[in-house]
Amino acid sequence: MGDDRIVLRELLSRDPADIAETLGELSEGQAAELLHRLYLGGAAAKTLAEMDPEESAELVRKLDRQVASTILARMDPDDAVDVLEQLPEDVRKELLSRLSRHDAKRLTDLLAYAPDTAGGLMTPEVVALSLAMTAQGAIDILRQRQESAGTVYYAYAVDDANHLQGVLSLRDIALARPDRNLGELVIRDAVSVRVDQDAEEVAKLFDKYDFFALPVVDAENRLLGVITVDDVIDVIRDEATEDIYHLASVPGAEGVDTSWWDSLRLRMPWLLVRLLTGLLAAVVVGAFEQAIAKVAALAVVMGVIVGQGGASGMQTATILTRGMALGEIDRKTGWRLLGKEVLLGLVNGALLGGAVGLLMYAWKGEVLLGVAVSIAMLLNVVVAGVIGVGIPFALRALGRDPALASGIFLTAITDALGFALLFVLAGLLLPALR
Amino acid sequence: MGDDRIVLRELLSRDPADIAETLGELSEGQAAELLHRLYLGGAAAKTLAEMDPEESAELVRKLDRQVASTILARMDPDDAVDVLEQLPEDVRKELLSRLSRHDAKRLTDLLAYAPDTAGGLMTPEVVALSLAMTAQGAIDILRQRQESAGTVYYAYAVDDANHLQGVLSLRDIALARPDRNLGELVIRDAVSVRVDQDAEEVAKLFDKYDFFALPVVDAENRLLGVITVDDVIDVIRDEATEDIYHLASVPGAEGVDTSWWDSLRLRMPWLLVRLLTGLLAAVVVGAFEQAIAKVAALAVVMGVIVGQGGASGMQTATILTRGMALGEIDRKTGWRLLGKEVLLGLVNGALLGGAVGLLMYAWKGEVLLGVAVSIAMLLNVVVAGVIGVGIPFALRALGRDPALASGIFLTAITDALGFALLFVLAGLLLPALR
Repeated sequence: MGDDRIVLRELLSRDPADIAETLGELSEGQAAELLHRLYLGGAAAKTLAEMDPEESAELVRKLDRQVASTILARMDPDDAVDVLEQLPEDVRKELLSRLSRHDAKRLTDLLAYAPDTAGGLMTPEVVALSLAMTAQGAIDILRQRQESAGTVYYAYAVDDANHLQGVLSLRDIALARPDRNLGELVIRDAVSVRVDQDAEEVAKLFDKYDFFALPVVDAENRLLGVITVDDVIDVIRDEATEDIYHLASVPGAEGVDTSWWDSLRLRMPWLLVRLLTGLLAAVVVGAFEQAIAKVAALAVVMGVIVGQGGASGMQTATILTRGMALGEIDRKTGWRLLGKEVLLGLVNGALLGGAVGLLMYAWKGEVLLGVAVSIAMLLNVVVAGVIGVGIPFALRALGRDPALASGIFLTAITDALGFALLFVLAGLLLPALR
Repeated sequence: MGDDRIVLRELLSRDPADIAETLGELSEGQAAELLHRLYLGGAAAKTLAEMDPEESAELVRKLDRQVASTILARMDPDDAVDVLEQLPEDVRKELLSRLSRHDAKRLTDLLAYAPDTAGGLMTPEVVALSLAMTAQGAIDILRQRQESAGTVYYAYAVDDANHLQGVLSLRDIALARPDRNLGELVIRDAVSVRVDQDAEEVAKLFDKYDFFALPVVDAENRLLGVITVDDVIDVIRDEATEDIYHLASVPGAEGVDTSWWDSLRLRMPWLLVRLLTGLLAAVVVGAFEQAIAKVAALAVVMGVIVGQGGASGMQTATILTRGMALGEIDRKTGWRLLGKEVLLGLVNGALLGGAVGLLMYAWKGEVLLGVAVSIAMLLNVVVAGVIGVGIPFALRALGRDPALASGIFLTAITDALGFALLFVLAGLLLPALR
């Protein structure tokens, strides 16, 4: 027990992010017990905020409800909401009912915003000042609010009806002569985001302008809260993970810690889709079963042709998808890219198709077999490039993630098409098949 | 000409990031001309800093050398170095020779650090204060240095020999009573990074601890500079792009703006590797040409088997690779993940392989064909899972990017192995082939 207390004291001296890491390594029962001790030591709220919201919610469910609601009240509202969102409806309601009316309302308001919007990222804890104030007056207010306002580096100027008038840098206030008016220090045409703006769009703004924080306003330009850059880093990471997963046809909800059963459940639908597309391609091949029995060399080379189409289509779709995610592609670029990919497909296809055609000729000594293979490969590579451009644009036009283009679906088309091209051409050209 | 001036004035009123965007849309000649006007308007340095360093370097090369060196001197040193790194040796030397000795030395020092290290990210413009100072004294110093120190929110406490003693938040200084000693405000056990630390490791620190800035020190803990979170966002984006590209076997240097000729040159090696791996698989199939001529159904189903192996191996490798990039995987997890993937492979393989086997039986009415197909698929999916875990770990152990595991190389193994498994099993089981 004495040892326990020393361990706890050592733990409490560490950064909340480190404590969160330790919690994540324990079993759920042990973690919940340690969390209760951290609560008594006053470190539970900051620690939970550093954990993955799903894991936090699991632990919160294991705590005494009154303790849990006290911890939530001590968390930054944006972090508390992330946890509440992961809890079942009844637990959430019970926890909110135990909070003060003010805290409960604030969290309920935040819960109304979708997590992937500016409202879902912001914290309502923001310092709003009147422009009539002096720099010294502002510092006096900031000093009083020091505890509640977290790590602020900006304050926001508002009028009597809370309309945003501009941004005030704490640095400018601190370095100004104390009697200077805030009206002289304010940056008036500052960027703000609408509360319903898409989180990825917000991330792009941070990325482009190198902001540390951005004010969030409603449709009438009333100040609602602030988003800081650390929240945006999470958005950027998650966005990249999502794109990577889509490209590889991995279910978005899976991670390293997912149980094998959940992994099975999550991956199975994707594998079934892959199976269906594979069977589709097999049906194409099956239609030419007689041709294969006569010229088995076609079965030997067919994998090379569709493999090359899949690989080059994947290159195109990946570059496009990433370019779209980074905001580098508009409709105009689309046509230029399509032209470029067709050209690349023609050159790549001619070179690689020519090489494989020569190999086939060298192997079997039949010119027309080589010609059929070369042309099938050339056409497949060109079409793969067109599809690699076309599908991401089509998906984006439909409001879906362009990254879904690649992996399974792209391969489905290049496979089926590649097989069909090869066998049709062989059927037309090879004497043995006529 | 009058119109031009109005356009320029409008442009100068905008954020440098917006001006940079406009520059990027112009032809190189026009852009260089506009940049010269921006220089006269005093906005060239900030604009160049917002552009992609490669594009900036292209424009800088088109400018008069004296103008170019003046612009570089006005840029933040970390941004100036990013541009200098993209210039040919002789241009770089000439530009540096035109700078003041102080500026030239500072940039030359920074150029010595690799771009993917803390040294390559940091700016040397940092506010170093002595702990003997009062809060008011610190504010006076910060006020004098306002211009040169950029957008600082932190100052750093150092001793006489420039050893880092702790971090001072500008907010704490501003809100403290003016006569308080900095020794009472300093955070002593603050995190710092070594100048040679890997940029991705630095990014992980920012992500984990939600820092806005981190001090950079040398091996003797002497303060060299500071890294701010906006530089880290670029690292995170670039890292994600690199991972995505590796997974899809896309050359890292290619983007949406790459010319078709460069794209051809960059992609060709990857496509050739894919061709070679495809030919390798074809050699495996070719060894069983006789079997295919007798049982063409094998050629029909073989694509389904290798496709399923490739898809499930890709899922595994992608989840692992992303987990490694996010720092969620250590050696211990490796064995657990291997066990999980083998289990998943067995279950997935049994289900999917069983289904395909049944389809084959339904199609051809031959039980043993169905059995051969089912077992081949089961084994291929299990092996794909093992490879999907094994290759990323092996690559990491070799100091390479684990993301290289996927795409081309993983497919090469699952293809060749899947074909071999199918034909060997068919050879053993099918009466027609014995």
